[in-house]
Amino acid sequence: MTQRRVGLWLIGALGGVCSTAVLGLSALSRKLTDTTSLVTASPLFDGVELDDFDTFVVGGHEIRKSSYVEAVRDLHQRSNVFSEAMIQACTPDLEKWTANVKPGTILGSGPTISKLADHPDVQRVATPREAVERIQADLRAFREANKLDQVVVANVTSTEPPKELSDAYTSIAKFRALLDTKDASIPASALYGWAALDLGISYINFTPSLGSSFPAAIQLAEERKASVSGKDGKTGETLMKTVLAPMFRHRNFKVLSWVGHNIFGNRDGVVLDDPVNKASKIQTKDQVVSSIVGYKPQTHVSIEYIQSLDDWKTAWNHIHYQGFLGTKMILQFIWQGCDSLLAAPLLLDIVRLTLLAQRRGESGVLKHLACFFKSPMGCDQHDFFEQMDMLAAYVAKVKG
Amino acid sequence: MTQRRVGLWLIGALGGVCSTAVLGLSALSRKLTDTTSLVTASPLFDGVELDDFDTFVVGGHEIRKSSYVEAVRDLHQRSNVFSEAMIQACTPDLEKWTANVKPGTILGSGPTISKLADHPDVQRVATPREAVERIQADLRAFREANKLDQVVVANVTSTEPPKELSDAYTSIAKFRALLDTKDASIPASALYGWAALDLGISYINFTPSLGSSFPAAIQLAEERKASVSGKDGKTGETLMKTVLAPMFRHRNFKVLSWVGHNIFGNRDGVVLDDPVNKASKIQTKDQVVSSIVGYKPQTHVSIEYIQSLDDWKTAWNHIHYQGFLGTKMILQFIWQGCDSLLAAPLLLDIVRLTLLAQRRGESGVLKHLACFFKSPMGCDQHDFFEQMDMLAAYVAKVKG
Amino acid sequence: MTQRRVGLWLIGALGGVCSTAVLGLSALSRKLTDTTSLVTASPLFDGVELDDFDTFVVGGHEIRKSSYVEAVRDLHQRSNVFSEAMIQACTPDLEKWTANVKPGTILGSGPTISKLADHPDVQRVATPREAVERIQADLRAFREANKLDQVVVANVTSTEPPKELSDAYTSIAKFRALLDTKDASIPASALYGWAALDLGISYINFTPSLGSSFPAAIQLAEERKASVSGKDGKTGETLMKTVLAPMFRHRNFKVLSWVGHNIFGNRDGVVLDDPVNKASKIQTKDQVVSSIVGYKPQTHVSIEYIQSLDDWKTAWNHIHYQGFLGTKMILQFIWQGCDSLLAAPLLLDIVRLTLLAQRRGESGVLKHLACFFKSPMGCDQHDFFEQMDMLAAYVAKVKG
Amino acid sequence: MTQRRVGLWLIGALGGVCSTAVLGLSALSRKLTDTTSLVTASPLFDGVELDDFDTFVVGGHEIRKSSYVEAVRDLHQRSNVFSEAMIQACTPDLEKWTANVKPGTILGSGPTISKLADHPDVQRVATPREAVERIQADLRAFREANKLDQVVVANVTSTEPPKELSDAYTSIAKFRALLDTKDASIPASALYGWAALDLGISYINFTPSLGSSFPAAIQLAEERKASVSGKDGKTGETLMKTVLAPMFRHRNFKVLSWVGHNIFGNRDGVVLDDPVNKASKIQTKDQVVSSIVGYKPQTHVSIEYIQSLDDWKTAWNHIHYQGFLGTKMILQFIWQGCDSLLAAPLLLDIVRLTLLAQRRGESGVLKHLACFFKSPMGCDQHDFFEQMDMLAAYVAKVKG
Repeated sequence: MTQRRVGLWLIGALGGVCSTAVLGLSALSRKLTDTTSLVTASPLFDGVELDDFDTFVVGGHEIRKSSYVEAVRDLHQRSNVFSEAMIQACTPDLEKWTANVKPGTILGSGPTISKLADHPDVQRVATPREAVERIQADLRAFREANKLDQVVVANVTSTEPPKELSDAYTSIAKFRALLDTKDASIPASALYGWAALDLGISYINFTPSLGSSFPAAIQLAEERKASVSGKDGKTGETLMKTVLAPMFRHRNFKVLSWVGHNIFGNRDGVVLDDPVNKASKIQTKDQVVSSIVGYKPQTHVSIEYIQSLDDWKTAWNHIHYQGFLGTKMILQFIWQGCDSLLAAPLLLDIVRLTLLAQRRGESGVLKHLACFFKSPMGCDQHDFFEQMDMLAAYVAKVKG
Repeated sequence: MTQRRVGLWLIGALGGVCSTAVLGLSALSRKLTDTTSLVTASPLFDGVELDDFDTFVVGGHEIRKSSYVEAVRDLHQRSNVFSEAMIQACTPDLEKWTANVKPGTILGSGPTISKLADHPDVQRVATPREAVERIQADLRAFREANKLDQVVVANVTSTEPPKELSDAYTSIAKFRALLDTKDASIPASALYGWAALDLGISYINFTPSLGSSFPAAIQLAEERKASVSGKDGKTGETLMKTVLAPMFRHRNFKVLSWVGHNIFGNRDGVVLDDPVNKASKIQTKDQVVSSIVGYKPQTHVSIEYIQSLDDWKTAWNHIHYQGFLGTKMILQFIWQGCDSLLAAPLLLDIVRLTLLAQRRGESGVLKHLACFFKSPMGCDQHDFFEQMDMLAAYVAKVKG
Repeated sequence: MTQRRVGLWLIGALGGVCSTAVLGLSALSRKLTDTTSLVTASPLFDGVELDDFDTFVVGGHEIRKSSYVEAVRDLHQRSNVFSEAMIQACTPDLEKWTANVKPGTILGSGPTISKLADHPDVQRVATPREAVERIQADLRAFREANKLDQVVVANVTSTEPPKELSDAYTSIAKFRALLDTKDASIPASALYGWAALDLGISYINFTPSLGSSFPAAIQLAEERKASVSGKDGKTGETLMKTVLAPMFRHRNFKVLSWVGHNIFGNRDGVVLDDPVNKASKIQTKDQVVSSIVGYKPQTHVSIEYIQSLDDWKTAWNHIHYQGFLGTKMILQFIWQGCDSLLAAPLLLDIVRLTLLAQRRGESGVLKHLACFFKSPMGCDQHDFFEQMDMLAAYVAKVKG
Repeated sequence: MTQRRVGLWLIGALGGVCSTAVLGLSALSRKLTDTTSLVTASPLFDGVELDDFDTFVVGGHEIRKSSYVEAVRDLHQRSNVFSEAMIQACTPDLEKWTANVKPGTILGSGPTISKLADHPDVQRVATPREAVERIQADLRAFREANKLDQVVVANVTSTEPPKELSDAYTSIAKFRALLDTKDASIPASALYGWAALDLGISYINFTPSLGSSFPAAIQLAEERKASVSGKDGKTGETLMKTVLAPMFRHRNFKVLSWVGHNIFGNRDGVVLDDPVNKASKIQTKDQVVSSIVGYKPQTHVSIEYIQSLDDWKTAWNHIHYQGFLGTKMILQFIWQGCDSLLAAPLLLDIVRLTLLAQRRGESGVLKHLACFFKSPMGCDQHDFFEQMDMLAAYVAKVKG
């Protein structure tokens, strides 16, 4: 019996999060690291059949010229993460997988992202349909060349500007028509999603961009027996908000104001320095507190690009709340986490659970993955512990 | 039909927490404040029949000479809490209830607490039994004079030194024999508990002291159809630990070290400045993280008396944890809360739930109150959200 | 011999800073408080003849309807400062001085400030000259009615939008001509300053607004034997920057980035929520670090209006710096100070030193007051300790 | 003309601070790093003739078996500092200098330090004099073998327990007699100092231990034309205290309490975990605030060994102060610095200035080095900026 082989196709393949995830896959396969920070490696999942780390083949799309070795070394040097020894030991895998990375499309990504695109072969196409077809050709070639049993696509590109959706996004037929419109300005994340789902490949949206979070895409997923999930990996400050806000609710404290200031200096930060792109991000970050406490305290979220911090996202949160007899009190926290290292294991968790879901015949929106996302699809629950209860209930069902 | 009347008997009646709770009862009765910070006033309890705030009559034991007006004015001035208007409006209740406060016993409280006792009539007795009988006489007189339908006793005294228990604490008969021993050195908190339970009055231990947390006392509670609960109200830093540690467990982070420094300057702080009394407190504070994450990170807890802070307990916590690929990250929080204002509503919550439980025929240890305590009796669960699930399950049962 | 009487005329007379300064003057006169936080009461000034606190008579201009008692009670209630007893004892002074407050002008204040003006008699004039003349009439009446030996004017209004200066601001003659121009849009702060200086009254600019910081005004001050000083009282975060940046310079650390987030909720905050007004403020806050360390680290300053904080300005600063062998390190501070209480004593210090300077025959820009200002006039030195050396040298000269 | 050669003899030669300083000397000589964090490389010293970094030869005493390469690699791996490339390039120097490190003495170091001594040839001697003579033999051999023009000795060992001084420490003659006493229990730091000074070699005490801070040693220094300086390099939290306390003094704020909690996990931390050794350290850290503000606020300093932090010393300081009209305000800071990297450049600064002083004929206590020490010898001034003024005055004198 041949070993099972699964493909992980990454959009934004050579960014910090993907490069870290890919180094992690290699290091885990080679037993150079332990499974700390992987939710799917926690005791909850004992006995659940998830794909082993050495089962994966990596490929993807990218609009910048680079390689996994270069990306990983860059993170090592600027953000002071990984060890020289680990990088060297994993270099063969990194080089092999770099060869699977193809030039991506920038159609509909907005000007700030497009400026980053320095790959000479970046896809410049006439219509959205053409972009979709070229993406599908790359996916098919990857699947065949590597004899893959199953493939999953994850969008880990920089945040696109917010998108007002027209009626064309409400049904498969209408969206297909839109694909032929030259000036359709469909976000790239939606094109990648459509391309994957149409091939029966599940699509994960790790970003706040549109992706497949519109009705037509969800219908397509169900039709093709694939799944979608998203949006925006819940890695740091927002995770904290969804952990602390439930405490304020349970204890019947009245949150007066919740201020969050985020500073960091990676490429994601450059993109978020564009106020248009930042708007998408702040939107997903700002709604969670009100949703959990059930009323609207004054909230403020800022994200600033501070170059010297590189990948170390630092967040200061100041929570002003009222206790008994009108007394105002304060809770502050300071989060100092390395963004790529926080995000990469979550990405691998979602990938493994997405592959499992498809094997189990589940399609459409994977609501039980809410705990992984800032803005979970198909679910209004932001309370992290309620979300974990949902995941635990799913796991119990899987175990039977 | 006459209105129901319930009695709240407070041990340490004129301390900061009790004085705040008592001012709160008065202010709530007079509609001068809202129910913020009362868990039993949150939507979870809609439809549960809990005693209204204007049903309560307050009395208690105290070893210092003071009054509610004096205690409340002292907090107002030194800690900058409450308003002049609220104090004035509630003064009639405060004066009426001060008249119900009787001199307490210092038998077995240790030298640091005994030094605080300046009441000329503080009970100086020959044997523990004599102390118990005098406490019971005060309780009976309170019940009769005020025509009370139900009474509950809460221990809110300063922390006693830790107590090594002999065999005499394991059964009702043996403990009764011990009560006649002159040099028995039974902690005062245990004497108060025994006195109350023996009269069929439920006993709440809001402190880390022994109280009724030994087998003989629990047997007595069951026999007398009364309940016990404790130990040590979970108000601030420990609440945060039991909120954050579950996040680290769920996300499979590896906590390397968890350091907590607490500073504050109220009377409780003077007592905790004695290393022997502090030992009891640190013990209940230090166990929760390991218990939740399932292994032993290095932990450190310090509590220091800093006079200028008065009742404003400030805690800095530094949590060092390991994420993916061995990367060390840091979460810090700073908690600035007013101790009496955090504790008082919890005390009222537990009081209301204890009265309810007895009316429902429940006796022995009230395990469903775990969420209110640093060191919950009859329950190893420290995860705040699991504890809230236990409380919610109880409430569902009550609602039928 | 009659007692000396000095007049303090406040522009923005009923704002938080002025109301606190006025309550302070009364409380100091009545020996109800000590001189903590007054630089001019520190040992450095022993033997320097400064005006006693009971020498002062207060008056001023204001565009809102209010009174000192109302303003002080508002701060007491919302920001939890002052004591009931102090307010009651000082009420006679507060009422007497409120009677000296006249309706101000909003000519040239910008739309956000103008919106706050609810005084029915707010000066609505046709030309700048008319505004100047009405201000002067009020000042003369104040001086005569109260038989004042000396008067000083301080601008403590909300921050105006930044102002691009034309050639008309470069000489007395040109500026006089401008005063007759109907659409001159001269900032109100400059009109008040001109009015005062023209009467030989020294003018203090406690705000970042234009005030008398232009050549024509400085010439007028010299001609009229009066002084000017400013701009923008250095009360909190900026004080910290000018204290810490010198440490980084002396130790030859390389500051990589310095991020400062400020949140607060007083009226000043409402005005600063207007991006145009905020621009003036951020400009004076942002230059100090580069000026001290001698190169340009990345800096970021934000100021956000968070209502629940009222007068409690909270600032988080994150300083990222490079040490030996390229190692990046971090210093963070959190400043929690009450804005009016920080600013008011500085205002009184500057007032006393301004009166002294005029008595000593000094005119023009008072450069030795640099330590009190975020953006000191006539001085490029931002290092707080160098500034204190300048003040100490001046005091030594005064002492002879 | 031959190039000048100077010898740096380090006691505790292979500890974190020394290893970092030595790597730094090599990296600076090889132009692999810049002079950031070296005070003597700041503009203040332009034109002062200090020894170039490539002039140094390193040797020293150590009680543990190790090497510079091992020590540096250990710091690299555990504390995530230095780069692989720098270590490799400097390895030839590190190996050459490791050969100059000789086994030290543990006579009088106390039990906690002695436990660390795993060097098989650690000096076990019968009398203090014997220890002194063996140290001197090592120093002479180092000077001759390397043809050194000048040598300086620096004590960078772990903190010894505090030492009550007898009359024997007050004169050269009495101390010489003590050296022959078998059970004299003279601290090792004093023996090293005596040995060096007796050879006319200046002695730097970078630790809070006794060193040469007693009258007999200072007399010997003057007699032998050598200098002494100390005690305890001012690297982090204490530096901050001496920077911030002057602000509180200048602004006439009243400091109510100043609490400092320090956590770190290097070898120094293991030694400081012994309460006896910790006492020396806390003593030098705790006096500075009172000394600067001129009165005694409540202060608290804790130092805890938290293994996971390795060399990253993290300090939280909570400063509670009173402002105008009795208002209490708070300043908090969090210092996250790498101890060895903070200390090493200061050590090199003091070494260069000590060599300069001897060449200029200065002997005895070098008071102008106060800014480098927590507990400066011969100087009561703790205000960092006053200390910098003293250094600047000295430099001005040197420049003539």
